[in-house]
Order: sequence, then structure tokens, then C-alpha cells
Amino acid sequence: MVKVFSYGELLKFTQLVFEKIGCSEQDASAAAKVLISADLRGIDSHGIARLTGYVRLWEAGRANARPQMKVVHETLSTAVVDGDSGLGLVVAPFAMNIAIEKAAKVGTGWVSVFNSNHFGIAAYHALKAVEQDMIGIAMTNASALVAPTFSVERLLGTNPICVAIPSGEEPAFVADLATTTAANGKLEILQRTGELAPAGWIQDKYGNASTDPHELKSGGALLPLGGDREHGSHKGYALGSVVDIFSAVLSGANYGPWVPPFPAYVAMPEQMPGKGIGHFFGAMRIDAFRKADDFKQHMDRWIRRFRSAKTVAGEHKVLIPGDPEREMENERLNNGIPLLHGVVEDLNNLGEKFGILL
Amino acid sequence: MVKVFSYGELLKFTQLVFEKIGCSEQDASAAAKVLISADLRGIDSHGIARLTGYVRLWEAGRANARPQMKVVHETLSTAVVDGDSGLGLVVAPFAMNIAIEKAAKVGTGWVSVFNSNHFGIAAYHALKAVEQDMIGIAMTNASALVAPTFSVERLLGTNPICVAIPSGEEPAFVADLATTTAANGKLEILQRTGELAPAGWIQDKYGNASTDPHELKSGGALLPLGGDREHGSHKGYALGSVVDIFSAVLSGANYGPWVPPFPAYVAMPEQMPGKGIGHFFGAMRIDAFRKADDFKQHMDRWIRRFRSAKTVAGEHKVLIPGDPEREMENERLNNGIPLLHGVVEDLNNLGEKFGILL
Repeated sequence: MVKVFSYGELLKFTQLVFEKIGCSEQDASAAAKVLISADLRGIDSHGIARLTGYVRLWEAGRANARPQMKVVHETLSTAVVDGDSGLGLVVAPFAMNIAIEKAAKVGTGWVSVFNSNHFGIAAYHALKAVEQDMIGIAMTNASALVAPTFSVERLLGTNPICVAIPSGEEPAFVADLATTTAANGKLEILQRTGELAPAGWIQDKYGNASTDPHELKSGGALLPLGGDREHGSHKGYALGSVVDIFSAVLSGANYGPWVPPFPAYVAMPEQMPGKGIGHFFGAMRIDAFRKADDFKQHMDRWIRRFRSAKTVAGEHKVLIPGDPEREMENERLNNGIPLLHGVVEDLNNLGEKFGILL
Repeated sequence: MVKVFSYGELLKFTQLVFEKIGCSEQDASAAAKVLISADLRGIDSHGIARLTGYVRLWEAGRANARPQMKVVHETLSTAVVDGDSGLGLVVAPFAMNIAIEKAAKVGTGWVSVFNSNHFGIAAYHALKAVEQDMIGIAMTNASALVAPTFSVERLLGTNPICVAIPSGEEPAFVADLATTTAANGKLEILQRTGELAPAGWIQDKYGNASTDPHELKSGGALLPLGGDREHGSHKGYALGSVVDIFSAVLSGANYGPWVPPFPAYVAMPEQMPGKGIGHFFGAMRIDAFRKADDFKQHMDRWIRRFRSAKTVAGEHKVLIPGDPEREMENERLNNGIPLLHGVVEDLNNLGEKFGILL
């Protein structure tokens, strides 16, 4: 039950929707590119399927279509950005650009952001640095769905980290990972198909292991990468915490259980300690460390050695982080992006409301 | 079968041993502090138990007791350090100090190191930044014991990452984690006790799951954090890869399967692409982002909220990263550091050789 659209069709529709809610043409275009990059790369949960969610945030007064983003504090290599409650899809490119500009001047740039909203996929932002021969880093906190080791309470988001690294003849290395065993998007797929989740992905509201993908609706939680203490869940919990602190405690955004939820119908947390959600971006110029050409030659050697590793029987090859998403991007640019029936229906309703044809 | 020593006794013995192999008094003192900090914090595998290993590296001509460390490339916020084949215990403090000095000037400092050796525990170095109201980051690559997802070959070290973050009235947040399911030190404990390893820690030489803690001696491998693909091992593999690239491809050290082994009796890899092993250090001044007092107040709130989370039945409390090691440090400063009989024997042999009494 899917319908296939071209990249251009989805991009244009998304841009028009963002313009209808009041974004400038420039912001709408930037936001659409970020959002649809998720569909291109196969991260369907973070792409156009969320467009109605973004519109609802705006309708609920939780997202500002005309943000006056600004730097509120800075040094030669750092900045804190106030996102003015703008769409993260607009705020994030603004902030990443500052990180890149600072790196161009002093070698590296680091930007922590408060008063923002969800920013799409981290890889889009990190890859902006790669275009400038820089290593790009992007992370964000998100509303709490994850229970730290030993906790029954949800205190962290799935808090992804992306590190994108340029190479020479080989494509860029792009590690983009939620700091949980499985991203929430994978759970959503199981909810739709009715399959059980593997052990180690979720716990119920008492903290018992569970395989029910609907567990989060009754007080359960996603588990940090590692799954349980014996398999290193304290490490996934620590990594998710670092993302939370860099993105929000450093900037003045909300953190831990106080991060605003994405669904506009979910009430805001009480006694919030900051503003909006937080992100953290970094850019490191390769030639701030060594000649870019030398680095790239060695990255190629690194990539080729790993890709040619002897594999477990039955497995084709060792993948380089970013390989599956890049292959998906090529495939979907050529053959289009399939959307589930439910998503198409949502988008048609949205289009009708705004007088736009998908 | 343990014997208990005071911190001061072990520190002095270690310093004298390093002086005997030719380190300056200052370097020997610095190296001893790094090494024994591991015993204090309960990371026994990385402490004085390795002292004979460091001496053997020196005997084999693989470690230089009188390194001429230098910055070979730099910008305002970055540097690359040539460790001149020195002990990592000496090179790492030198490099971390440069990161801190740069952060003091331009907000952040980032140093990649080549031509070094093993640097003890990452937390020691990261915590140096915390003393200056900075966030400290330390990572290192190591010889290959870990198989990437789908690989039967060992291509990565246990490649730890440490992030240490200052707080106010609460103690610092210190996440210090190998990017594997379990650190090699934990496997060594099972080897001594004869117990089996939990599923998900190791694989045999064909890539099959194994619980035999001796598996690495017959071609097996440690597994990346996550354990298997279904539980996110591709994320642990990606994180270990980032550590490898930041530490070695950025600096000019060896990477992947070419990282020199710690045991001096293991032959060096062939066709090595760089020099020695690599590290990566970062320091970010808190007040480069916001007022340090504001940040610390929010860190305290973060820590207290997580520590007071409702727990799974039977578990006492949610731990903050760094809690167990800090408690161990207090306990061992007061009551001494227990060493296993075999370790004491090794140290006595070492002492006899150099005419030092433990």
C-alpha cells in the first residue's frame, strides 16, 4: 500500500506548506530540503511523514514561522544561538553555518542552541561541514522516551549523534545514530505491522523487559544502547546524557524529562528549566590538523580496509557508516520515494486545507 | 589472595620505576599519577597491573623514556602533537594541557596526537579540564581486538571515549566508556575466575556468538557496544570508528588493524600507515557558552533529577556517570588499594630488577 513520488514533487509540496504557515520563501525552501533529505536517505520516520506534526506545532503556537534567530553569546570558536522558537529545520542550518564560519577562521566552531524545535535528521546538518572539507558534528535532545539504566522513569530522548567525515575517492563516512538500542522510528514500523520487538529494545512501566511495541503508550520506555546493564546500557545512557547536556544545559534549553514533546496534543512539562529543545553543532577543518589531501588518502585506506574485511558466513560485506543511507538516496533519487497510504492521506488533507495539490 | 597497599606506596614505587627506565623526575611523577589513578578509581586492568607491560615496551625499544614532544601543526583552536614515541602517560598530559590553553584563549581547544603509546584511563585526562571549569574530552585508539558488525576480522581497539563535565554542588559528571559491550579488563577477570562471559560480549573466529572468555586467544573478537546488529552493534562500531579516525587519521598515527599492540612480545603489524598510537583531546570552556554559575546550577538540577528517578524494583538508585568510580576512589584513598597476588609478584620481580622495594 504505497504510492511513489519524485523527490522534486515532495520537496515542492513541503516548501509550499511551510510558506502557507508563514515561513519566508528562503526558510521554507531550507526547511523542505532538510525534511525531505530524511525520506531520501530512508529515515522515513523523520521525513515528510512528520510534516503534519510540524504544522500542528505551529497551530498550537509552539513553533514560530518567522523566528528572529540570534547569537546571544560567543567566543572565537563558540556561540550560543537563540532559535526564537523557530522550526528546528530552519534554526539548525542557521546554527551549523555559524559553526562552519568559525571553523574557517580559527580551526573549529561549536554552537549550542536553545529555544528550537525538532531539526529533522542530524546527518543533513553534519554533512554541510563535509562540503567545506570539515568534519561535521550534529546532535539534539528530544522529549523523554528513554529510561536510564535501573530507572522506570523516562528521562532522556533518543538523542542522536551524527559525525560526518570527508574522504577522498570514497564517499564520506557518516555515523548517524540514536543513543538507544533502536530508534523510535523502528518501533513505529513494528506497531504498524503488528510484529513483536526484539528483546532489549523496550521495557514496561515496571522496568521489566518487554517485546510489545505499544509499551510506550502504557508507561514503558525505550532502552539505552546496550539494552541492559550486563550489555552496557549504562554506556548508551551516558552517551544520551552527554547529548542532552551539550544541547541543552550548555545553551539554556530544556533537558531531561522537561523537553517539550513533538506531538502538539501532548501537554507541556511543568516547571520547565529552559526554553524549547536544544541542539549542538560542531565543525572541524581538516587542514587545521593536517593537509586535507593526506587525510583523505588515509580515510580512503581506512574505508577500503574495513569494507574488504573477511565477513561472517552469509553476510555480504562489512558496511561503512553511511553506506546504506547513501545507496538509498541514489535509489530514491532515480526511482522515487514510496509513501505509505496513511502518510499520503495525511498529506492530501494538509494540501486540501492549504489549497495545494500533492 | 590480595594484599593491600596505600595510594602513596604505589605512587612512589611507580615513580621510581619510571625514573629507573630513564624518565625525568617530572615525567615519572606525572606518569605515576596517571597510572595509579586507574587503581584508585577501580579500573584495575589499566593501573599498576600494567606497569611491567610499560617497562617491557621500553625494553623492546617501543617506548621512549625521554621524548621530545612537539606541536607539528596548529591553529588557534587546534593542534597536532608528535609524541616522539613517549609513554602515553606522559604524552597525554602534555597534549591535554595544550587543549586547555587553547580553550582558555579562544573558547575551545582540540588536540590530535600521533606517535604515542597507551595513556592509562581516559578519565584522568578529561578531568584535568574540569579543574579549569571546562568540559574535558579524551579518547584513544588501541590495538585491534574488536570485530565490526558482520566482520570476523578484528579491526578496532576497545577505543574509549571520556566526557567529563563540571557541576556545582554535585560532583562532576564523568562518562568514561569503551565502545564495546564490555571492556577487555572485564574479560580478563573472567579468564582468571574461570567464569563464562555473558552472551553478546564476544564472538569466535568464525563470527559465531561465544561465551568463552579465552576466545580472543584463538582468533575470536570483542563485540562493539550493542553486541549484534539487531541490538545496535553497528552503532558501537561507528563510535569506535570515530575514535579511531579522530585519534589517528587526523593526526598521522596508525589506525584500524595497524595499531601497535601493548604486549611487547606481539609482533608489530606490517605496512603500518602511521606512527605509534593516536589520541584525541578536547577542552570547552563553560563560559564560552554561558555563565559558569548558571551552567553549574542546571547541572546540579540535571544530576539530582536523574539520581532521584523512580527505580526498577530491587535496584537502589539511578547512578550518574562517574558515581561508582568516585566512590571507589574515596574508599581506596581511605582504606588502601588491594592488589591480586599475581600482580604483587610481578611488581616484586620488577622491584628486584631495579633495586626498589615495594
